[in-house]
Amino acid sequence: MMKIYGDAQSGNCYKVMLLCSLLKIQYQWVEVDILAGETGENMFLRKNPNGKIPLLELDDGRYLSESNAILNYLAHGSAFLPADRFAQAKVLQWQFFEQYSHEPFIAVARFIAKYLGLPEDRRADYESKQEGGVKALMVMESQLKDSRFLVGEELSTADISLYGYTHVAHEGGFDLSSFPAIQRWLQDIESTPNYLAMTSNN
Amino acid sequence: MMKIYGDAQSGNCYKVMLLCSLLKIQYQWVEVDILAGETGENMFLRKNPNGKIPLLELDDGRYLSESNAILNYLAHGSAFLPADRFAQAKVLQWQFFEQYSHEPFIAVARFIAKYLGLPEDRRADYESKQEGGVKALMVMESQLKDSRFLVGEELSTADISLYGYTHVAHEGGFDLSSFPAIQRWLQDIESTPNYLAMTSNN
Repeated sequence: MMKIYGDAQSGNCYKVMLLCSLLKIQYQWVEVDILAGETGENMFLRKNPNGKIPLLELDDGRYLSESNAILNYLAHGSAFLPADRFAQAKVLQWQFFEQYSHEPFIAVARFIAKYLGLPEDRRADYESKQEGGVKALMVMESQLKDSRFLVGEELSTADISLYGYTHVAHEGGFDLSSFPAIQRWLQDIESTPNYLAMTSNN
Repeated sequence: MMKIYGDAQSGNCYKVMLLCSLLKIQYQWVEVDILAGETGENMFLRKNPNGKIPLLELDDGRYLSESNAILNYLAHGSAFLPADRFAQAKVLQWQFFEQYSHEPFIAVARFIAKYLGLPEDRRADYESKQEGGVKALMVMESQLKDSRFLVGEELSTADISLYGYTHVAHEGGFDLSSFPAIQRWLQDIESTPNYLAMTSNN
């Protein structure tokens, strides 16, 4: 059975857990503690030299890292990854947007607030993430006013990628009340059969 | 004919120009001046609400943004995007690595040094990028000791993505002399038929 190395508290790892739930994919979970530094230990670096989770290990021992690459690999051939060339390119567009223009603001602000407890010496860093995070939400809102999901009318891995940290954006100080299309979209995802909620440590 | 909106000085735009040259794809180039703020103007934001280049406009008026999504769209069906499911996932793995763990360090350090002239008030920012950039180069070096290109023995869009800013990493203060496998790989890419060098403003 394939293994997924991850931290159940991480949004990037949660994306993979959510997709596996939606597609009823079986896997063995291997918990890795980021805060304790386990991703920097040699045993883990031999599996992923970039020292990041989630990490997928296939039955034959091959490894795949980067949450969005894992999502698309697992969703291959399913309804969650459109076969159409342009639609698939749009899925990637949103996933690259997520990693460059969304996650570094929203996930990092949330990390500083929720996991580090917003210490004084990180406050400027936390505040510097707000403008970029709001801009990313505005880009999403603009699309979700026009279509039910990020790429047309069907749920795709693009939605799963963006859902990961968007649905907990309030924990990073982002107020979703001024983004009605995003709120409608969150509900649409949460009402999908086999939806799995994120593990919370609260 | 399809249009590409970009700034010839940007490594993210250069990636697309390089792929088009390698594949002999014809396009109309529309120059957009980032430093003059043209990507933030309403006329551009209507094309790409995220306000970033490169941006691809197809013949039928549809738009696609994010350099790596554009690369894979254009390379679809060519030798530069492997059809094998796992190999294609590895291409994506490297492209997400590029956007999250490489570009924010190496391209940003280069931008501060080359385009802003390393002003005193950005020196701390510049220096904070060095460790992450070196780490990204070490991850690449580790792979390129094992295989000719990032995903096996053939050039793929993963290499084009990483080549964009790696081959000008010295302009961001990164010394490639301690990365012999990366240097060998740069030469292999530069000797590919129809290779196109980056436009330099020097």
